[in-house]
Amino acid sequence: MGSKERYQLLFDKINQYNSGDKGITRVAYSNEEQTCTHAFMRMCKSENLDIRMDSCGNVIARREGRIKGLPPVAMGSHLDTVYSGGKYDGAVGVTAALEVIKRLNEKGIETDHPIEIISFACEESARFGVSTVGSKAMAGVIDKEKYRHLRDRDGITLEKAFALCALDFNSIDDASRKDEEFKAFFELHIEQGPILINNEKKIGVVTGIAAPERFIFKIIGKASHSGTTPMNMRKDALLGASEIALALEQAAIREQENGTVATVGVMNIESGAMNVIPGEVEMKVDIRSTSLASRKRVLDELHEVIAAVKEKRQLEVQSLEISSEEPVLLHADVVDTLKRICEEKDLPYEVMPSGAGHDAMNMARLCPTGLIFIPSVDGLSHHPNEYTPMDVVLKGIDVLEQAVLHYAK
Amino acid sequence: MGSKERYQLLFDKINQYNSGDKGITRVAYSNEEQTCTHAFMRMCKSENLDIRMDSCGNVIARREGRIKGLPPVAMGSHLDTVYSGGKYDGAVGVTAALEVIKRLNEKGIETDHPIEIISFACEESARFGVSTVGSKAMAGVIDKEKYRHLRDRDGITLEKAFALCALDFNSIDDASRKDEEFKAFFELHIEQGPILINNEKKIGVVTGIAAPERFIFKIIGKASHSGTTPMNMRKDALLGASEIALALEQAAIREQENGTVATVGVMNIESGAMNVIPGEVEMKVDIRSTSLASRKRVLDELHEVIAAVKEKRQLEVQSLEISSEEPVLLHADVVDTLKRICEEKDLPYEVMPSGAGHDAMNMARLCPTGLIFIPSVDGLSHHPNEYTPMDVVLKGIDVLEQAVLHYAK
Repeated sequence: MGSKERYQLLFDKINQYNSGDKGITRVAYSNEEQTCTHAFMRMCKSENLDIRMDSCGNVIARREGRIKGLPPVAMGSHLDTVYSGGKYDGAVGVTAALEVIKRLNEKGIETDHPIEIISFACEESARFGVSTVGSKAMAGVIDKEKYRHLRDRDGITLEKAFALCALDFNSIDDASRKDEEFKAFFELHIEQGPILINNEKKIGVVTGIAAPERFIFKIIGKASHSGTTPMNMRKDALLGASEIALALEQAAIREQENGTVATVGVMNIESGAMNVIPGEVEMKVDIRSTSLASRKRVLDELHEVIAAVKEKRQLEVQSLEISSEEPVLLHADVVDTLKRICEEKDLPYEVMPSGAGHDAMNMARLCPTGLIFIPSVDGLSHHPNEYTPMDVVLKGIDVLEQAVLHYAK
Repeated sequence: MGSKERYQLLFDKINQYNSGDKGITRVAYSNEEQTCTHAFMRMCKSENLDIRMDSCGNVIARREGRIKGLPPVAMGSHLDTVYSGGKYDGAVGVTAALEVIKRLNEKGIETDHPIEIISFACEESARFGVSTVGSKAMAGVIDKEKYRHLRDRDGITLEKAFALCALDFNSIDDASRKDEEFKAFFELHIEQGPILINNEKKIGVVTGIAAPERFIFKIIGKASHSGTTPMNMRKDALLGASEIALALEQAAIREQENGTVATVGVMNIESGAMNVIPGEVEMKVDIRSTSLASRKRVLDELHEVIAAVKEKRQLEVQSLEISSEEPVLLHADVVDTLKRICEEKDLPYEVMPSGAGHDAMNMARLCPTGLIFIPSVDGLSHHPNEYTPMDVVLKGIDVLEQAVLHYAK
């Protein structure tokens, strides 16, 4: 059996664990996800790896190196999915890591450094509203008391979900590891966007991971009768919100070369009706960039336009910042190594930021970290139709293998 | 007891019939509305009027004139309300009509023409989604088979609601009356808008009633990840909808001197979320004018901007016209008479269009019709806080009395 057939079999096995009828549903700490995770541990065991699950539910499978005491080169991603998600997001990176180990075992290659596969717990925010829980715990940046009481849509707390998986939430800090424990970390992941497909590239070499700044704005005008209120006596909250949304778009377009993006994903009219002028609108705004300075310029423009619209339309605007995370720049050496590998393999690649968060952004706090993208057909992700051709996934695995070997020696 | 106390008592009696805990809920063909209507009939009977309820549930109370065979001068409005509405919308016009009769009886004034009070059934669209049912039936313009199957929020059809009031829906056409049956019709109503209050006027002399042209637009772009989709690869349906809404506002502002108004009252994002670029938006648009030409200019601009936005943003736009009614111009003689009465009484008045529909617009098909507005404090209507000071209501009744006497002689 060639590498391609072997990998396809592994990938299909993992995606048997699914509770959804549309796409893949394998949410964090659910029975499907736990069964999948334990099956994956047994597969790792079959490749003679030392396996363990840490106190947060992360799986660590280790292949020893030739030289005692050297820190491992790690690789991995996550096995959990969103509700009705796809087969590729996360699962590609975990199965790819095992395929790399199989190749090394098959070729009898030993390395100076140990190599670890890490399958991170609860990367998706779908169940509990928080993302990359496992890698946050590993990087020691979890807000334990805040996370403990988060609930899923059935009212089950994160603490309770841990207990149902025979994990002790109180020990979650034991999952943290120190930076001297790692030589490097690599994650292979689908892009979840249209850049590689549109630019006909096979590999994305990620330079940094954008972090979102998120706001909820409440625009308050005055609800009144659509027929009896003259145009010049209106305080239309929706038109104010529309101006703000369009100005935000322009501000982000001006920062396009920095890869900055801004989105109004929610714009709800309170009690909207055909014959009522909108009196109150809730807007949810998401601004992302790998450059804090660029993100700030967009944000400054947003605040300017809000002030102008308030004044012009006599609206009240309430503003609530709900998150403001720091973007992560990935290590220049790692980026250079990945570029070199793509060139050696004659793979068309794009050097690009990641607009979505990944476990790699937490691992980057601990060690030099590389994030390797492969294309998402149609830019689709978190969707049953998520797809990347298998030949292209295998190109990604080739790059991952070379990168790990380069650092593990 | 003076007219003021007497009228206040009548007004309060009518508003005892209420099933709501917030404001007034007395929806069409409900028990509360029917009990109220029958109580009103008994009050009319006490003033020696001939009373009857027609096959649509309209109440007609008639005071005979001196000369046999002359057509009556009618006045009235409606007793039904929206859910959680106010005390004034409709009830003012019906109770005012009875107060006029009481004054004539008290003063022993006889008229050549008979005088009728009409309390129209089901003016509000709140229960069945259609408005001015009673006056449409009287004007003979009801679409019987379409109306029969309309349902309220509990699934009760209009036909069934008729039966519960001991009315036979099949006989609804019997409610229609011919134009030779009327000399004139007058309706006193609250403005439901801010013009009179803002301009410090006591009376509005209405020149025409705007009719809405209504559309539902579906703007279809592509839902994608807010973090991973560059600004130049987006098809954001919400931004397209925002541009359309703002352009519509500008088009209506350019027609402001024609009293034309345009509103986007609903703008729903399908599956909106903080981290998803809106892929589909439903907009509901309402354009009103007493000038068809002006309304058409706004509509033409709307279609132009939709075409431009489609092209620019590569969106699909589906368009559904859900109503396109004809505006009604009120009789110039009636308007002149009402202006003269205001001048004689030294009442500050405004000659203005009505942006909202009223029973008067159907009666205008049958005879010269006058619509008299009194101010709505804060422009509020269809709201528990709907309010007009009693002194001002009484000024409105004075004008109504004079107008009816002028035509009834």
